Amino acid sequence: MQLGVVGLGRMGRIVAERAIEGGHEVVAFDPDEEALDAAAAVDVTPTESLSALAAELAERKRIWLMVPAGEAVDAALTDLAADLSENDVVVDGGNSHFSDSVRRAESCPAAYLDCGTSGGPAAAEAGFSLMVGGPAWAYEEMEPIFDAVATGPAGHERLGPSGAGHYVKTVHNGIEYALMQAYGEGFDLLSNGRYDLDLEAVARTWNEGAVIRSWLLELCEEAFREEGTDLGTVADRVAGGSTGRWTVEEALEQEVPIPLIQAALAERYASRVPPEGRFSRRLVNRLRYGFGRHEVARRE
Amino acid sequence: MQLGVVGLGRMGRIVAERAIEGGHEVVAFDPDEEALDAAAAVDVTPTESLSALAAELAERKRIWLMVPAGEAVDAALTDLAADLSENDVVVDGGNSHFSDSVRRAESCPAAYLDCGTSGGPAAAEAGFSLMVGGPAWAYEEMEPIFDAVATGPAGHERLGPSGAGHYVKTVHNGIEYALMQAYGEGFDLLSNGRYDLDLEAVARTWNEGAVIRSWLLELCEEAFREEGTDLGTVADRVAGGSTGRWTVEEALEQEVPIPLIQAALAERYASRVPPEGRFSRRLVNRLRYGFGRHEVARRE
Repeated sequence: MQLGVVGLGRMGRIVAERAIEGGHEVVAFDPDEEALDAAAAVDVTPTESLSALAAELAERKRIWLMVPAGEAVDAALTDLAADLSENDVVVDGGNSHFSDSVRRAESCPAAYLDCGTSGGPAAAEAGFSLMVGGPAWAYEEMEPIFDAVATGPAGHERLGPSGAGHYVKTVHNGIEYALMQAYGEGFDLLSNGRYDLDLEAVARTWNEGAVIRSWLLELCEEAFREEGTDLGTVADRVAGGSTGRWTVEEALEQEVPIPLIQAALAERYASRVPPEGRFSRRLVNRLRYGFGRHEVARRE
Repeated sequence: MQLGVVGLGRMGRIVAERAIEGGHEVVAFDPDEEALDAAAAVDVTPTESLSALAAELAERKRIWLMVPAGEAVDAALTDLAADLSENDVVVDGGNSHFSDSVRRAESCPAAYLDCGTSGGPAAAEAGFSLMVGGPAWAYEEMEPIFDAVATGPAGHERLGPSGAGHYVKTVHNGIEYALMQAYGEGFDLLSNGRYDLDLEAVARTWNEGAVIRSWLLELCEEAFREEGTDLGTVADRVAGGSTGRWTVEEALEQEVPIPLIQAALAERYASRVPPEGRFSRRLVNRLRYGFGRHEVARRE
């Protein structure tokens, strides 16, 4: 099958390569010439614009967008709109907000599939987990591509109508925040606890048959092996957060209590406050003086 | 090697069977005759008391205790004490508090290994993850047994002196509480969110390559497959909690913040309050009346 890939960053590059390995023909566009050249070296047909990409594709175009969530998706869809018709299929494989995907599905001339993509760059070899929403016929049409990009036929699923794919992916990421924080807390306690432990050995032993074994725990093991049991120079400021925030916002909207996921997001925000800058703690410090005349610690 | 197993419940039975499959000879005691008979059917040599078990074992006795944490461990050690000497090795494979293990290691005439055992009854086939604390020579002496009972040589590790094994196992369980709660919250949101989702399909797709894939997520998939996407008749009261409490107590002692693990333990306690019985919520209800004259909901 012929596939147009828009965006050849880390993730788009993997989509293109896995599709080619799966026996498909890939035409791609990326504004970055280096990315285009690199892809051309692995049999991707490069094109110089979105309209050139559309022109390369036969009737019944299948296009996979792998661009940053937000304006870049709308911009690509605007540029492609004139070349799309109702028999074409567009996949958004990025981390879009599900409500944007619902809106885009309504306005896009082609059938529109929102596709949550998990596994990160590490999925280059094993394949992604793909959570898809949108019209059933379009999903079925794309199955040969999904088979190649995912871990295999079991690695993708149409979970519901438009938005369902990105909805499930958002919640996936919310869970991910809490899982990472949970491992972080446990290793924090072990690191600062009463035994002098080799945390790589702990993680390795746990990954062998323990209840909490997981891919994230394998990444913990790798982290301690590569950075040291004290994590060496790794900083404690954690970036990211949009999908976690969307998960919490949706939980508020649906009035579903998700205390751990909320707390994991809060930990991430807390990590970004400059040293000595946490206003809440500073007020607590002053209030302890207020009622108990405990000496107020002052910043320099 | 000859091994004495004390306690043939679900976990002790697996220890005995895996040791036999590993080519070892197993002598066992359990006060429950049915458990003894069942074990005898798989080549375990049954004995009628702890002293009979000790008498069956050659010099340099190796004994694995797999009895409920707490008094049962002390009782077994008291009964065995007269038959033990410094060349013998006793392993406690249960969920003992690490401070109890430190105390027992000091008073036991034999070398004492505390061994956190994870994997549950599901480990019968794949083997356990074993986290061991205690004297190095005793650990090395027991390695052939650990190789058989664990997933293999990689599935066990001496992590430090007495107590280190149960210390690491306790924190493992604290992490486990938070991981389970994190998955629970995510699926709760999906179950009560804006799409009508097949949660087994979601879990299955995630287990194929997604970042949050894990053994616990495989158990989620199994749960939705066997109980239905709404979990059917499964109750929401969650039992257990000693190791989670110990993790939180140790974090308080060490002044290490573990907000998610603490919240996961709190969720478990909250699950046990009888319907309409949550005092904090009832006071909030009354206070809303107090300041705002919001009508007070009354229980029947």
